[in-house]
Amino acid sequence: MDPSRLARRLAEAGQSHLLQFWKELSPEEQSDLTFDLQEMDFQEINRFFQKAMEMSSGSKQEKMDARMEPVPREILGSVTRDRERLKDWEEAGLLCISQSKVAVLLLAGGQGTRLGVSYPKGMYDVGLPSRKTLFEIQAQRILKLQQLAEQNHHVKNCVPWYIMTSGRTMESTKAYFSQNQYFGLDQNNVIFFQQGMLPAMDYEGKILLEKRGKLSMAPDGNGGLYRALGNQGVMEDMERRGVEFVHVYCVDNILVKVADPAFIGFCVKKGADCGAKVVEKTNPTEAVGVVCKVDGGYKVVEYSEITLATAEKRSADGRLMFNAGNVANHFFSFSFLRDVVKKYEPELQHHVAQKKIPYVDPEGQLIKPDKPNGIKMEKFVFDIFQFAKKFVVYEVLREDEFSPLKNADSQDAKDTPTTARHALMSLHHRWVLNAGGHFIDENGRHVPAIPRSGGAGRFSDDGKTNLKDGTDLPIKCEISPLVSYGGEGLEELVKGQEFHPNLMIDETGVHQLVKNGV
Amino acid sequence: MDPSRLARRLAEAGQSHLLQFWKELSPEEQSDLTFDLQEMDFQEINRFFQKAMEMSSGSKQEKMDARMEPVPREILGSVTRDRERLKDWEEAGLLCISQSKVAVLLLAGGQGTRLGVSYPKGMYDVGLPSRKTLFEIQAQRILKLQQLAEQNHHVKNCVPWYIMTSGRTMESTKAYFSQNQYFGLDQNNVIFFQQGMLPAMDYEGKILLEKRGKLSMAPDGNGGLYRALGNQGVMEDMERRGVEFVHVYCVDNILVKVADPAFIGFCVKKGADCGAKVVEKTNPTEAVGVVCKVDGGYKVVEYSEITLATAEKRSADGRLMFNAGNVANHFFSFSFLRDVVKKYEPELQHHVAQKKIPYVDPEGQLIKPDKPNGIKMEKFVFDIFQFAKKFVVYEVLREDEFSPLKNADSQDAKDTPTTARHALMSLHHRWVLNAGGHFIDENGRHVPAIPRSGGAGRFSDDGKTNLKDGTDLPIKCEISPLVSYGGEGLEELVKGQEFHPNLMIDETGVHQLVKNGV
Repeated sequence: MDPSRLARRLAEAGQSHLLQFWKELSPEEQSDLTFDLQEMDFQEINRFFQKAMEMSSGSKQEKMDARMEPVPREILGSVTRDRERLKDWEEAGLLCISQSKVAVLLLAGGQGTRLGVSYPKGMYDVGLPSRKTLFEIQAQRILKLQQLAEQNHHVKNCVPWYIMTSGRTMESTKAYFSQNQYFGLDQNNVIFFQQGMLPAMDYEGKILLEKRGKLSMAPDGNGGLYRALGNQGVMEDMERRGVEFVHVYCVDNILVKVADPAFIGFCVKKGADCGAKVVEKTNPTEAVGVVCKVDGGYKVVEYSEITLATAEKRSADGRLMFNAGNVANHFFSFSFLRDVVKKYEPELQHHVAQKKIPYVDPEGQLIKPDKPNGIKMEKFVFDIFQFAKKFVVYEVLREDEFSPLKNADSQDAKDTPTTARHALMSLHHRWVLNAGGHFIDENGRHVPAIPRSGGAGRFSDDGKTNLKDGTDLPIKCEISPLVSYGGEGLEELVKGQEFHPNLMIDETGVHQLVKNGV
Repeated sequence: MDPSRLARRLAEAGQSHLLQFWKELSPEEQSDLTFDLQEMDFQEINRFFQKAMEMSSGSKQEKMDARMEPVPREILGSVTRDRERLKDWEEAGLLCISQSKVAVLLLAGGQGTRLGVSYPKGMYDVGLPSRKTLFEIQAQRILKLQQLAEQNHHVKNCVPWYIMTSGRTMESTKAYFSQNQYFGLDQNNVIFFQQGMLPAMDYEGKILLEKRGKLSMAPDGNGGLYRALGNQGVMEDMERRGVEFVHVYCVDNILVKVADPAFIGFCVKKGADCGAKVVEKTNPTEAVGVVCKVDGGYKVVEYSEITLATAEKRSADGRLMFNAGNVANHFFSFSFLRDVVKKYEPELQHHVAQKKIPYVDPEGQLIKPDKPNGIKMEKFVFDIFQFAKKFVVYEVLREDEFSPLKNADSQDAKDTPTTARHALMSLHHRWVLNAGGHFIDENGRHVPAIPRSGGAGRFSDDGKTNLKDGTDLPIKCEISPLVSYGGEGLEELVKGQEFHPNLMIDETGVHQLVKNGV
């Protein structure tokens, strides 16, 4: 494309300022900028901007509240309220896995910026005794699940793992998996693909420059998934493999039950094309989106879109009416996903995220704003719920399945490496107790099942008002996913046995790590 | 008492070692020690020790699990499930208050040791904009309640405030109230009394020495209340005043609804002699005691007494079966309290708290043990539930009513000055919204009702994945109890108005604190 044609295209789209510094750029910078600009469909981007701004503006909030209806009981499966059916669901899911009909799809386009690291979040080590990263834990859960399905149904099977990265995380993610031999998975069954990018814009729709010769670009949100599925050959790959059901999840949840057989079995038995795993929201002001019905279709309403009055509404049973907390953990049938990619994706609108975006001003100065100065446009993975013909919701226990890693450790922060580590060790502690094991303190006495802090890993202090601080030792307990996917199979290893509160069970055996001097 | 007689008494009780250093003591130390020892009934203390050790030892845990039954619905009142009756209960309670039949009784014997301060916890300032302490907040709630009752029933009334201190906190507590003119309360209606002390003992029942001439003493637990009520003339004072209902609570809960009219009204309308306010326990391993039925009587079972299997039991509705989380917030009728003091108190057994207790060894050296070396004996305020003829339970919302202050701020800690401050400001933020007020950001846009962190007061970061971080400003909002006891009466001050997120409403008006440069 010749420069004058590019300039004309930009002028037509009102983005001529992108060439403002053209003459000051080196030939190489000019070439890079030209390359980036040629790739882009400015008319489409302007359209995205206009629609996104319309959608985000104004008076819709009040209306949304009036239109929200809670999830009806008949489409809800619950691990606490439908306990007698759990076994059936799990078996149905495991059967699908044994038939190699189930794939998992990981949303891993984000960097660990809020965690304070520049590499992909999945490579983060939260400080478990094993030092495993999120990627490694998830890989081992997939491995174990394949084994369980094979044991149950005596047939080799495969759970392909589709990993969506972004321009920012692709290379390092691939290199990490390669260096680690795909954690024992077959390399052919780990498929990387990449979500798209969109430019950041100011409030008038002008694309922002990050440098004088470089646009400010950001991933197009986890809902960029659907466009990427279509334009990177992923749907064809799934079809070739005979994938019928896909479990989609976010990288940051350390407790995620990858391809959870019970969830998949529930969805399959219900004949669902689309399902959302949720945890109960119990505090009205918890910052979590809720699954609900709006105008007859299903939707995740973000916490920032809801009024307090609606957030506080309760059903007759005393629970919050809108309590289906979204945990970015979804089920899709392949055919639904295909319809979405082919038909519905273009209908999805972008959401507006107001951000502080560093930019080059007309004088060529790099400005780092201290309040939001522009927007990024994002689609959300759950935006397609509205197109489902048979939507279901599956409620699980937060303490068993949801502990996201979002922020670096600090006094005020939630969802940190510490909370993630404690959540995992607390779960594994409970697995050991439920399998008949016991923990003992230095005097050989049983440690109470419920530690003082409400979670394992906290150190008891020398409190005055609380009982038994002498026996409330912290329990450190980690069980490799290669030993147990969801707590199963531990009886033979722990039943009737007593352990010191520093226990690691992995494929090489049961290890008690005794500290020096204890 | 002559020294030889004291020595004989000690010998009979197996406590002769307390005089081991007698000859090395100064005359003054000898006199002090003699004074302390003369006061004590060693036979009784030994009996306490034996019974407490029996009760705490061994195989009772399994049996407890089998005997526990959940709170039946018919004795339960719930702010979420009985919303249509709340108004009635509140009116009934306010009527009792207007008739001066209601007293509040504060358990404030503890020092702020875990908070890192040496003064009484009630004097702690959690860093609210007003810098009010826990005592001041509670005093103002009592003041406001008296006013509300007077407004409703056009009669002067009084809610006497009984404050139980310990030997460690009595003088500083009294001085603090006096210096602050009782926060506007009538000095005659603030009545201090003091709980007893018991010696700390080693595992063999030998009393420990803190210095060579001084016993190691500790308060006898919040259940020391009943003995103190009897031996310090408090019951007579209540009778003289015509008190019929008493609300007992712990000093450390910043959200405590002192003499909560709805709770009192519920208990009175139910004809209860004893009631416990609870919050729903939603996580099986939360470290909170639960109210339940054991052998036909009611009891608080501590989290350390319960097995995981029992803690995880669920009812058909999916809720935890044992979910009535004790918040140390109780209702007693005066006549029940009188029976307890007269008849039942001696039947109460002490619980054993294993502690690290500094002590003087036989060589006269002060030893600071690094693991538990002895016990303190405590009674619990809820130990008398078993004697109730008509026991009821009243379930409230944790986010509205319970945020205890226990630990100093630190990365891992729960129940800190920060969490207490946030809980109060989040509640007041919700009051403003529910009264029709709005908060706006620096661009004049409404701030979403649910802040990103799930609680007011947290600062938004520059997150990448989350929406609208530009508008999720922290809300700082504090409303004086003198303006509103429980959210009432705010419409005229806030309805339809827009506030900057730094709002203080007190008896002098509505103040918006604008930071420099904003």
